Amino acid sequence: MPSEIAYRKGSDFPALEAGKLRVYSMRHCPYAQRARIVMLHKNIEFETVNINLKEKPEWFLELAPLGTVPAIQKDDIIVYDSPIVCQYLDETYPGEKLTPNDPYQKAKDAMLVERYSKKVVTPFYRMALKQEPEALGELLSGLNVLEDELKSRGKTFFGGEKPMMVDFMIWPHMERIADMGKVNDKAAIRKDQFPNLVAWIDNITAVPAVKVTRCSEEDFIKIVVARKEGKEIFDIGVEQ
Amino acid sequence: MPSEIAYRKGSDFPALEAGKLRVYSMRHCPYAQRARIVMLHKNIEFETVNINLKEKPEWFLELAPLGTVPAIQKDDIIVYDSPIVCQYLDETYPGEKLTPNDPYQKAKDAMLVERYSKKVVTPFYRMALKQEPEALGELLSGLNVLEDELKSRGKTFFGGEKPMMVDFMIWPHMERIADMGKVNDKAAIRKDQFPNLVAWIDNITAVPAVKVTRCSEEDFIKIVVARKEGKEIFDIGVEQ
Repeated sequence: MPSEIAYRKGSDFPALEAGKLRVYSMRHCPYAQRARIVMLHKNIEFETVNINLKEKPEWFLELAPLGTVPAIQKDDIIVYDSPIVCQYLDETYPGEKLTPNDPYQKAKDAMLVERYSKKVVTPFYRMALKQEPEALGELLSGLNVLEDELKSRGKTFFGGEKPMMVDFMIWPHMERIADMGKVNDKAAIRKDQFPNLVAWIDNITAVPAVKVTRCSEEDFIKIVVARKEGKEIFDIGVEQ
Repeated sequence: MPSEIAYRKGSDFPALEAGKLRVYSMRHCPYAQRARIVMLHKNIEFETVNINLKEKPEWFLELAPLGTVPAIQKDDIIVYDSPIVCQYLDETYPGEKLTPNDPYQKAKDAMLVERYSKKVVTPFYRMALKQEPEALGELLSGLNVLEDELKSRGKTFFGGEKPMMVDFMIWPHMERIADMGKVNDKAAIRKDQFPNLVAWIDNITAVPAVKVTRCSEEDFIKIVVARKEGKEIFDIGVEQ
């Protein structure tokens, strides 16, 4: 079993077991969390190798040349980049199919994720990482896109009465945005303003696979505080 | 028939004909070109509405909220963002299927397009639009990724013996990179350095759908020169 402690530059490649699926991850990376949720939700067995993203192991850069997590590996199969990893997992593993068959519904979900990335995730990172509070207006108006979409779809989840890939693609950053809102009043996702979004957050946090991957609010704050000091705590929560 | 001249802010919405597929495009936009090639290659009938991307019509922003081309519209169906548009066209229209059925092959193509976007297109834009000649090294090493991939795939096209979606996703920017190389010696795609890439460029430029959408080298230079002066010539080549 590989260590939970993030592997770094100079480390040896943790030997791969034949036929075993491995995910290269980072404990609090929202992109990696997408893949972890999908695997847990589909009951796919996997092992985790965490990566120190500030000092990446040489062998990691070789197998995942974009240098990002998640990446998955099984025997000689390697897939990286979160939407590609998630789609590959959904297409090759049995269990609940998480992507709609209808091409237009699939396109609508993909467009929503793309709008979300540009209109919500980008201003969130501007606020959280670049300390640009002026991105707040853009963030709130981006959240309105999700609110309107949930209202017009009129279901428990974006994907319908059960959570689908579109929900799992959106959730990880929303988790952090919701937590940011708890410590920054101005960025709060208020029920009177976003009733459908608040209900969706309640619904998705009750999904077992989502629960397991939840970064606690307490850890989230530690991570943000460390970042303000230019530090990254990749091993938060690991029993050392 | 809508005008070929780019529609701008304040213009009236060009009435939509029932059942007719329309693409919102811009004459020399590489992203829009991806969709145009796919439609031409699959013999899909369509009409074109060009958009002035500096002064976008209000109705365009309403139907394509990211404000980018391509977007397609047919009756009440609207799809935007080039990879989503291309996938939707491939899945809903008859004719040659351009995406592989095998999930791993599909993932490999998607990873290649992602690497290409980050490692080739980004440095290309830094050179061509931001006038950062220091991006040249990065561009050439990105082109090596394509060269190596072509070599290891060992076929006429990235997609096999026939061009596939992966080829059409890569081509439009490569067209411009190759043209830039003709006027900037240092950025030239030299046959001794990139034998497989040069052969691929020859092969893909012979594909009829690609030929039709080719932006001439002469027009490309006019566009680049205009951009250096802060101007955009959206209507280049239109009979006025």
